[in-house]
Amino acid sequence: MANAPVQRMSQLMAKTLRDDPADAEVLSHKLLVRAGYVRRTAAGIWSWLPLGKKVLANVERIVREEMDAIGAQEVLLPALLPREPYDATGRWDEYGPELFRLQDRKGGDYLLGPTHEEIFTLLVKDQASSYKDLPVILYQIQSKYRDEARPRAGILRGREFLMKDSYSFDVSDEGLGESYALHRQAYQRIFERLGLDYRICAATAGAMGGSKSEEFLAPAEAGEDTFADCPNCDFAANTEAVGFALSPVDAEGVPAAEEIPTPDTPTIETLAASLGVPASATLKNLLVKVDGEIVAVGVPGDREVDMGKVEAHFAPASVELVTAEDFTGRPDLVRGYVGPQGLEKVRYVADPRVAPGTAWITGANKEHTHAKNVVSGRDFEVDEYIDVVVVQEGDPCPRCGTGLVLDRAIEIGHIFQLGRKYADALKLDVLGQNGKPVRVTMGSYGIGVSRAVAALAEQHADDKGLVWSKEVAPADVHVVAAGKALQTELALDVSGKLAAAGVRVLVDDRAGVSPGVKFTDAELIGVPQILVAGRRSAEGVVELKDRRTGEREELTVDEAIARLTA
Amino acid sequence: MANAPVQRMSQLMAKTLRDDPADAEVLSHKLLVRAGYVRRTAAGIWSWLPLGKKVLANVERIVREEMDAIGAQEVLLPALLPREPYDATGRWDEYGPELFRLQDRKGGDYLLGPTHEEIFTLLVKDQASSYKDLPVILYQIQSKYRDEARPRAGILRGREFLMKDSYSFDVSDEGLGESYALHRQAYQRIFERLGLDYRICAATAGAMGGSKSEEFLAPAEAGEDTFADCPNCDFAANTEAVGFALSPVDAEGVPAAEEIPTPDTPTIETLAASLGVPASATLKNLLVKVDGEIVAVGVPGDREVDMGKVEAHFAPASVELVTAEDFTGRPDLVRGYVGPQGLEKVRYVADPRVAPGTAWITGANKEHTHAKNVVSGRDFEVDEYIDVVVVQEGDPCPRCGTGLVLDRAIEIGHIFQLGRKYADALKLDVLGQNGKPVRVTMGSYGIGVSRAVAALAEQHADDKGLVWSKEVAPADVHVVAAGKALQTELALDVSGKLAAAGVRVLVDDRAGVSPGVKFTDAELIGVPQILVAGRRSAEGVVELKDRRTGEREELTVDEAIARLTA
Repeated sequence: MANAPVQRMSQLMAKTLRDDPADAEVLSHKLLVRAGYVRRTAAGIWSWLPLGKKVLANVERIVREEMDAIGAQEVLLPALLPREPYDATGRWDEYGPELFRLQDRKGGDYLLGPTHEEIFTLLVKDQASSYKDLPVILYQIQSKYRDEARPRAGILRGREFLMKDSYSFDVSDEGLGESYALHRQAYQRIFERLGLDYRICAATAGAMGGSKSEEFLAPAEAGEDTFADCPNCDFAANTEAVGFALSPVDAEGVPAAEEIPTPDTPTIETLAASLGVPASATLKNLLVKVDGEIVAVGVPGDREVDMGKVEAHFAPASVELVTAEDFTGRPDLVRGYVGPQGLEKVRYVADPRVAPGTAWITGANKEHTHAKNVVSGRDFEVDEYIDVVVVQEGDPCPRCGTGLVLDRAIEIGHIFQLGRKYADALKLDVLGQNGKPVRVTMGSYGIGVSRAVAALAEQHADDKGLVWSKEVAPADVHVVAAGKALQTELALDVSGKLAAAGVRVLVDDRAGVSPGVKFTDAELIGVPQILVAGRRSAEGVVELKDRRTGEREELTVDEAIARLTA
Repeated sequence: MANAPVQRMSQLMAKTLRDDPADAEVLSHKLLVRAGYVRRTAAGIWSWLPLGKKVLANVERIVREEMDAIGAQEVLLPALLPREPYDATGRWDEYGPELFRLQDRKGGDYLLGPTHEEIFTLLVKDQASSYKDLPVILYQIQSKYRDEARPRAGILRGREFLMKDSYSFDVSDEGLGESYALHRQAYQRIFERLGLDYRICAATAGAMGGSKSEEFLAPAEAGEDTFADCPNCDFAANTEAVGFALSPVDAEGVPAAEEIPTPDTPTIETLAASLGVPASATLKNLLVKVDGEIVAVGVPGDREVDMGKVEAHFAPASVELVTAEDFTGRPDLVRGYVGPQGLEKVRYVADPRVAPGTAWITGANKEHTHAKNVVSGRDFEVDEYIDVVVVQEGDPCPRCGTGLVLDRAIEIGHIFQLGRKYADALKLDVLGQNGKPVRVTMGSYGIGVSRAVAALAEQHADDKGLVWSKEVAPADVHVVAAGKALQTELALDVSGKLAAAGVRVLVDDRAGVSPGVKFTDAELIGVPQILVAGRRSAEGVVELKDRRTGEREELTVDEAIARLTA
């Protein structure tokens, strides 16, 4: 290793703070600000100070090395993008207020890129003409922009953030599968090298479109994602993507459906209380309008409908809840007393828990009246089963049936099989082996580089401060001059020798700062090894402390140098 | 050196073009597009393809190493910035239409940073409290935004571009001088390592404010700056900053001033023609309004007034040309016949060429009348000498008097002693040694990183294409498989061995592409060494060609590897 620089704390732009910033809610925000890694410039917009920039650069380097290792090619596209391609794919409008839009001096419309599918698609359209030019994986590490409604949680969710985004281009579905698998492996290596605890979770594709999608989630209290984890098998999924198997049951022996008077019970709560049954015995029928047409959604009475799932299922159609006006002129729809057995004119979709053969208490389509023994598949038909309920702790694992555990996590990576959505919109074809045009299929893959730093801070900290792993730490060793001239001289001397051997050194040579304050700062800053030139400096004896374990040892200077350069 | 990657042309996203792009005016634009380094995404907005990104990264690395070497600390500030600090310094308005402005979802005003003086000033205000915390130099390498009226010249003048900007903070003028000198040295090392031919030129500070300022100019036909170069001494300056020494002459023997009738000669041209004298014998008096007050500017009749210099001199006051209306009610101002000898009520500034003792033919402040033998300092007083004329080829060097040569150049770097303009506006003080607040003084320093790539392309090219120097080239060697399976096998084998020795290899392994096309592409792409596996591949003999000199040599594979890894 070549000569590494010595960073002197006396000159370092990294003021540490004793107290948490007033607006900080999450651990990484508190610690990264207190330890002088980042500072807030505006809501959701951050500045990286020297120590923070070093950690960020280390994360970048690891990401770059692993992307290069799968043959991905690094490019750099602009962040300021023209509107037209985003109009072609519909995202100029679909993105809503999260998209930063602006005009240039001539009134032309531009946006600040939230992700770059469109521009990469056009780039490959310009560059590739034949199946021989594919497959290709392109990536960049670049600032991205999203105008979050409530930027919070420090750099976990900013409005300007650093991201590695990559895109794969293949002529076949098998090829896309391979590009996806390559990314999955690269991401595993990246997060392992970063030292992040993470789970790979099945995910829904959301607004990005496409089919298969997985998230890399780093469990942390500060996380904004909830995922379901199976304590028995290796199943893990974003709660939006857990799924529930359809298991028909035998309805033989269930008596015929029968109306029961239930005055003043328009809600599940009033109904269950009035009949003395659990809410789970009742069938709740939620009415929504899908592009204006009324659709009923059936779920067990004890479950909540996840409107996000309903919207995702019907996208790109719009989904709204019905209002009182929607019942006028519809005698078949009796508000509070809707039951699927009387809904000939309405499409009925249901959760798989409303499987064929299950029997329910539900509305009788008459005021103040319900019906019991209403059997799915006998008394009513489900037009389509869709997964719409909010997953709860204890729901069965779709793989092994064990009760799921719900945990909070930070999304640090996301991989998508986009398919042909963008290639269709922007007409990306190449000549196939048979000489005819083939539409290209794409994948899109992201890692939040700045967010990964926050996730690391969340997972690698103790009550004294940050605890970086060697590969991402802003330095290898933090040398503390705990005393006066003698200690400072020794500290600088050791630092110089370490640096000459390629060790990255941060040395606290500040004059007029007590050893206690220096120790506190060293633990807050969290460099893996702390070397103290203290009271035995005259003998050439220093103390070496492991930041993580707290283990400390007295060593001669030569021993310490040998240890740190080993 | 560790194992370097082998980049295979068969997979590389870098389509070369035989023809210059239709919209390309300058050499670097043509070559960088044709060789597949960059592609245009929108007007003045560029995408860097894999080869271009590698060159850009090499330039970045050199800049980073030399900035680190002067003790500068790297940070990363946002590009999306809040309006308030730019209001405080007045730049929100002053920047005019070049500033990209936008609003967030809540209607808050933001801008895309053109430079970051304000934000760095606030950062240091947050971080530094004592003179002990200074001096400090902070830098970042980041995308910058300027909404150019007519983005042209490819990446030489883009609307989004990569820049290294740094800022120094000192408590004394001497300190600022040292920080400035450190930058000057670092810039010299950077441009030398990049292999750029450049000149350091005295410059005016312009809109940035401040006092001392120098530009690093790379001579090139495509350059948008003009500089004056002395063929005799080491003087070089932006033409805006050449200056002309004031040299009084002896006016003894000049007869008394005398009016001469000159009907219908309201312009210098008509006057000189009518009298049969050169325009240089006449004194031209341009009337301008400085914040509404009329000021006369005197220059020799054969010289043009550089309005930019006039504006810079009077800034922040506004400067306008007078219009016909301004003459109403002013009998002292006779349009077309103004002379300084009759302007008691008007401030008179003049070029140093109108030195005391010089005699002129000028307006007599009467219709159709001029005066001759009007002597500066005898018949009129110059209130202030300012340098306002447009410099011409052959003007005397201010240092040695030799006739200057004018050349075009690309501004690749600019260093400014800002002084206290930003610290005053944002109240940046630290506690001084005496316990009292000291206002901080600043420097601001920029290198156009993406522009440097274009400047390199301008200076390092021949009629076949680009010719990169080793430190910035996208690879060390370009291996060409000139033939079929045998040649390709040898090319890949050699490439693998070179890469294992740490050599960065680009290998042209494309099937179905003729050797001729591959040679043409290799010369266009411009990697310093070209290794050809051709007709003597069976014997293990390859050809090694120097891209710059064109020298070629046949070598055994082992000899070639030894040569390239030496």
